[in-house]
Amino acid sequence: MADITAIAKQFTDFYYSTFDTNRAGLQGLYRDNSMLTWEGQPLLGAATITEKLTSLPFEKVQHKVTTLDAQPSSATVASLIVSVTGLLVVDDSPNPLQYSQVFQLIPDGGSYYVFNDIFRLNYA
Amino acid sequence: MADITAIAKQFTDFYYSTFDTNRAGLQGLYRDNSMLTWEGQPLLGAATITEKLTSLPFEKVQHKVTTLDAQPSSATVASLIVSVTGLLVVDDSPNPLQYSQVFQLIPDGGSYYVFNDIFRLNYA
Repeated sequence: MADITAIAKQFTDFYYSTFDTNRAGLQGLYRDNSMLTWEGQPLLGAATITEKLTSLPFEKVQHKVTTLDAQPSSATVASLIVSVTGLLVVDDSPNPLQYSQVFQLIPDGGSYYVFNDIFRLNYA
Repeated sequence: MADITAIAKQFTDFYYSTFDTNRAGLQGLYRDNSMLTWEGQPLLGAATITEKLTSLPFEKVQHKVTTLDAQPSSATVASLIVSVTGLLVVDDSPNPLQYSQVFQLIPDGGSYYVFNDIFRLNYA
């Protein structure tokens, strides 16, 4: 699973650095059939998802990945499930928030797009 | 997504009640190609997975689900991704552990089996 893990790492590095510096740039990672469930709210399609992500009420955000696991998600296609747990530092708060996020990545012309995305903050 | 959520709830209710009362009974939910990544350790196949789960070093365990989200995971098959965050109470400890778990469920003869399973404890 070395390749899967490398792909997952490359994806999450790119995803979170884009999220933290230029949220509108995430739109290219989603397609019309992509799903995001954000804190229980279901959103469908790249445009709707990007609108949600760019309207989140924080000025400055930083994701710090704590754990990253990946598995192939299909016996026939080179898709993968990526599970992340980490910390979200919002607006330089000294109290980072714990989060869990799951992606399913689907191969598409030499790259991948996000078909599934589920995000949750974890409150103690 | 009402059906998807109901299926996810039914599955996790069954999965965690079986885990908490009769861990060996989980074997029937996995197949030979099922994957479990347990705290970063990759395991393949129902027998290997069940051996791991039944050998975990706690006598008594209780899962308490905090959040449960589900999405269809394929455009062609009625499979689904289930993302859980919750608390694990081990051996009546007063300090429950936070965990995140992701499943992909694949339809199989009127029921579902677990193709993907990723489990992580979340340390603050």
